[in-house]
Amino acid sequence: MARKPKDTQDVTGHLTDLIKGIKVAMMTTVEADGSLRSRPMWTHERDFDGELWFFTREHSPKVDDVAHDHHVSLAYSDPSRDRYVSISGRCRLVLDKEKARELWNPTLKAWFPEGLDDPELALLCVRVEKAEYWDTPNGRMVQLAGM
Amino acid sequence: MARKPKDTQDVTGHLTDLIKGIKVAMMTTVEADGSLRSRPMWTHERDFDGELWFFTREHSPKVDDVAHDHHVSLAYSDPSRDRYVSISGRCRLVLDKEKARELWNPTLKAWFPEGLDDPELALLCVRVEKAEYWDTPNGRMVQLAGM
Ligand SMILES: Cc1cc2nc3c(=O)[nH]c(=O)nc-3n(C[C@H](O)[C@H](O)[C@H](O)COP(=O)(O)O)c2cc1C
Repeated sequence: MARKPKDTQDVTGHLTDLIKGIKVAMMTTVEADGSLRSRPMWTHERDFDGELWFFTREHSPKVDDVAHDHHVSLAYSDPSRDRYVSISGRCRLVLDKEKARELWNPTLKAWFPEGLDDPELALLCVRVEKAEYWDTPNGRMVQLAGM
Repeated sequence: MARKPKDTQDVTGHLTDLIKGIKVAMMTTVEADGSLRSRPMWTHERDFDGELWFFTREHSPKVDDVAHDHHVSLAYSDPSRDRYVSISGRCRLVLDKEKARELWNPTLKAWFPEGLDDPELALLCVRVEKAEYWDTPNGRMVQLAGM
């Protein structure tokens, strides 16, 4: 019997659950010299609608990287549960106090002790272009292209 | 009191332990159109000496990516223990049956059922240029530059 392609909405829902269950992404950016660099970033919990949001300091190396080359990848892994999610997208800096208020969550105090009053507080928005995940012990990949 | 920089050998040893404890890296490469793409890759367990080795199929998208742009990043995360390791380096394809025999381990049967006889079996070697890790609840980063 031929394998039926999964329903896109099912797959998107499953992706949302996988990301919610992991939360911390390793965000990879391209540095000015062409090197790739990854760092852990706390993902704002929301139903996934094609964009993912992160808090950042406005003046920071990753913001410089993204200004120069907006391609990023987001890797979510949880080896204890054999779950791996890979997202490719484009990232932009967003300076929007209103949006920051809407997305703010107290966990972020660890990195932004001044909270919403921090003048350096800014947002990164990643528009997802491709998503893949592996969540079975034998590691078959499920692809969600062209989002 | 000023913070004393950690001894390099200590830090390298600690990095080895962190990688051994996680094993699966999300390897990010640059695709032909400039997009970044990540996928889980099983790290060969060895004392870390500046290079990390992976098995791959010789003809696969990641090998094409690396032939075109050898910059890669390797992200190791274990959210259940709050551990995140980020490595930046350069990657090359290595076709060497002897080396493959030396590094082979039965876990790899999941991706290479024919084992060492698989004509597509090849190696990727990443020369580490920068490594950073976060392994404390408050997320302070430790940097190991210029390896
Ligand atoms: C836990 C885990 C470990 C994996 N390890 C490897 C590996 O060591 N080598 C490999 O070629 N693929 C491995 N894969 C499969 C890759 O993630 C990927 O799907 C495959 O290599 C094709 O990648 P590409 O299309 O980017 O070339 C692994 C998958 C999982 C889930």
